[in-house]
Amino acid sequence: MGASEEAKIGTVSLPTKPQTPNGNRAPRPANLAAVLSSLTQQFGNRLVTSQAVCEQHGNTLTWVVNQPPDAVVFPQSIADVQAIVRICAAQGVPVIPFGTGSSLEGQVNAPFGGVSIDFRDMNKVLAVHSEDLDCVIEPGITRKTLNEHLRDQGLFFPLDPGADASLGGMAATRCSGTNAVRYGTMKDNVLSLKVVLANGEMMTTARRAKKSSAGYDLTRLMIGSEGTLGVIVELTLRLSGIPEAIAAGVCPFPSVEAACNVAILTIQSGIPVARIELLDELQVKASNAYSKLTLPVTPMLFVEFHGSDAGVAEQSRRFGEIASELGGGPFDWATKAEDRTKLWQARHDAYWSGRALRPGASVFATDVCVPISRLAECVTATQRDIAESHLIAPIMGHVGDGNFHLTMTFDMADADEVARAKALHERLIARALAMDGTCTGEHGVGQGKMAYLEAEHGRPALEAMRAIKQAFDPCGIMNPGKIIGPAPA
Amino acid sequence: MGASEEAKIGTVSLPTKPQTPNGNRAPRPANLAAVLSSLTQQFGNRLVTSQAVCEQHGNTLTWVVNQPPDAVVFPQSIADVQAIVRICAAQGVPVIPFGTGSSLEGQVNAPFGGVSIDFRDMNKVLAVHSEDLDCVIEPGITRKTLNEHLRDQGLFFPLDPGADASLGGMAATRCSGTNAVRYGTMKDNVLSLKVVLANGEMMTTARRAKKSSAGYDLTRLMIGSEGTLGVIVELTLRLSGIPEAIAAGVCPFPSVEAACNVAILTIQSGIPVARIELLDELQVKASNAYSKLTLPVTPMLFVEFHGSDAGVAEQSRRFGEIASELGGGPFDWATKAEDRTKLWQARHDAYWSGRALRPGASVFATDVCVPISRLAECVTATQRDIAESHLIAPIMGHVGDGNFHLTMTFDMADADEVARAKALHERLIARALAMDGTCTGEHGVGQGKMAYLEAEHGRPALEAMRAIKQAFDPCGIMNPGKIIGPAPA
Repeated sequence: MGASEEAKIGTVSLPTKPQTPNGNRAPRPANLAAVLSSLTQQFGNRLVTSQAVCEQHGNTLTWVVNQPPDAVVFPQSIADVQAIVRICAAQGVPVIPFGTGSSLEGQVNAPFGGVSIDFRDMNKVLAVHSEDLDCVIEPGITRKTLNEHLRDQGLFFPLDPGADASLGGMAATRCSGTNAVRYGTMKDNVLSLKVVLANGEMMTTARRAKKSSAGYDLTRLMIGSEGTLGVIVELTLRLSGIPEAIAAGVCPFPSVEAACNVAILTIQSGIPVARIELLDELQVKASNAYSKLTLPVTPMLFVEFHGSDAGVAEQSRRFGEIASELGGGPFDWATKAEDRTKLWQARHDAYWSGRALRPGASVFATDVCVPISRLAECVTATQRDIAESHLIAPIMGHVGDGNFHLTMTFDMADADEVARAKALHERLIARALAMDGTCTGEHGVGQGKMAYLEAEHGRPALEAMRAIKQAFDPCGIMNPGKIIGPAPA
Repeated sequence: MGASEEAKIGTVSLPTKPQTPNGNRAPRPANLAAVLSSLTQQFGNRLVTSQAVCEQHGNTLTWVVNQPPDAVVFPQSIADVQAIVRICAAQGVPVIPFGTGSSLEGQVNAPFGGVSIDFRDMNKVLAVHSEDLDCVIEPGITRKTLNEHLRDQGLFFPLDPGADASLGGMAATRCSGTNAVRYGTMKDNVLSLKVVLANGEMMTTARRAKKSSAGYDLTRLMIGSEGTLGVIVELTLRLSGIPEAIAAGVCPFPSVEAACNVAILTIQSGIPVARIELLDELQVKASNAYSKLTLPVTPMLFVEFHGSDAGVAEQSRRFGEIASELGGGPFDWATKAEDRTKLWQARHDAYWSGRALRPGASVFATDVCVPISRLAECVTATQRDIAESHLIAPIMGHVGDGNFHLTMTFDMADADEVARAKALHERLIARALAMDGTCTGEHGVGQGKMAYLEAEHGRPALEAMRAIKQAFDPCGIMNPGKIIGPAPA
């Protein structure tokens, strides 16, 4: 394989279509033509094949090269999705579910071509059962739109990955984000899914009861499967009551280690913190510049507490005591809702502020997660590694979960810098795994983390995943080239 | 099939070995002999074939007839379990994992014979990572023993199904119990599992990080799979800090409906109640007699709150206000630890107190779970149904989750009474499913609920489960005849 066929960075050599080392194949032109003809007949101008639109549906936010699908289709119903999958399955043409395209590991790329199923038009709230604290939605609705819809009923969906992602995509990648430390991840906040399988049948994974022991946990199997086992077409989500009181603020620390240790002690003390986010010094600098903040340029924790007035006061006090003992403070409270919004917007814009540190540079955001006792050690070792690698790479993280992100900036034209970034990335993952952590806490596997799954899980688990993939998708049309490929020859 | 071959009650006709309608088969005598010879050679007197011990390892607590295994083996290590599975796999002989035998739906029965793997001797705590709030244990340890081990470190494992079950069994059946309303079920409290697969290989499902997006959720797939996909040989559990303050008490209500509505409002108000248990009037009468309590004979809620002193006081006050508004009270607090222990022991002994209502009668305990808004309606309709069925059948439940139990007593010699019990059971499940609930909130499928899975999940989900079973256990040796059988001929 020539260098030009390889993806630009990373240890997984991801070739451009039509053929890959894992045995997947792009469909034959005749099969593809048959699919496009059938889809055009059924969907008219809801099928789009323009290069611009196809490229928009390849990945845009990662180091992986853009691999556009052959066409994009916009279904309006579950029956539409079933028809699309059946048409594609008959010709062996891949289908790739698409929400908003905010995934970070190449999940929406089309390495073997095929049809991107864009859920833009399936974005309705189908039911809110406020008395059961749940709702039923279509997969294309985004979290901000959903929460606007819910607000009047005093309810919200707590997961917040920063980007205004679609709920279908959030389920598909087992998303978590800032509130997960208190409210859990997507695996904890989905009651049931409707999923279109590779044969076009629609499966319902569970009833609306809060818990069940009735057979294999198909809901959790689908969450995090990134479209490789089926296409999520409807979700029943658990909701939470909007807290009576919310308090948020920022607290500076003399070192990243001190900030991490405060996060560790907060969790160990059982304080039910709703968000506890680390920004290292470089990230604070980036956020000040991009989000027009005036934070002291030192490691910071952004925190938020939810509860009753008395509960929030008690949580804040206990957190303040821990922070103060480890040299943190003074604490700056954002008492007004606008101030809180500005604060969290700055946190959410961290990816973009990281990019803005080096205008024109390429950016590669990755994430790992370790047992919380190893967090300070993992972050500080990574900071040393960044310094020794002579790279500009801010760190931020959902530190209450032991999860942090590294946003590497580099000049793609500088082969040496690219090599240093690749090596830093490899060492970050190796470090997390050595600490009994995971190669991805929340971004998912996509294409970018496939190479690390065996090191993380071992061969028997990988073979189990492959057997599941084979059982659900014997023809390999469901988002092929993601998470796991066919067995090595 | 003759009536004598059928199980005594229930709609699933469970024949005695050697052959069943779902195509599973007992092994040939020569294969079984080869297995017993190999196991004897390797395990000496840790292999037991006496009828008494084998019958103890068939099911004892359910309506399903005792179906003893051909032998019971007591492994002492993961390598032992791997050897047992390899020996059995080579001869096509079933393996049935066994914890303490407290499962309620025939999970440990051996309908096709085979070898019961009793984890009695694999009961060690391997590590407690108090700084990460987790521990690593062998599957045979029971919850009470584990909690005694953890107490000194200020930690506990919150799940409490009543019986002093083994943690391996609790994971295998996706157990929940009284504390689940606050702490979640086994799916929420297991970080990782080691599982011996049908080929004898040992799979690790996840790292010790609190969250991960690294591929399919094998941990959750194994939880609730009841030994049909693999044998759990090690667990990494999430732990919780022992609460600073605990308050428990009992509150009488004028009607079951009022008590259910208080449970519903408590959950809807976001009060983080740790336990909220309903006992109907008949169950209160039974508990008074069996557990020597002096409760007023009227529907009761047993509740418990965990938190800081101030938090517990606030929760109790808010709960008291709701209870009072719906005619409940006066509230009787169990302030002393001994009083709390007595209270929860009485709750845990509800199964036995139900049995004691009719000494010598057979008892069949079942459970369903519905969306909480339907709880009062489901419980009261079931009470009417019990009355119309002329059966003695107390109700109790983890009502904060919408989950409740029906303990039916009946005289097995009275064909008419047995028929009425069967019909009541059928209608209970139909009612729960009609309310978008599940045929089992926490007891699992085993043999007893197999017949209802298709009605609950639909055919595509059932076929997906069957495909998973086939992928993990192509020869059908892993606890066959539970959850799901081969495809109908």
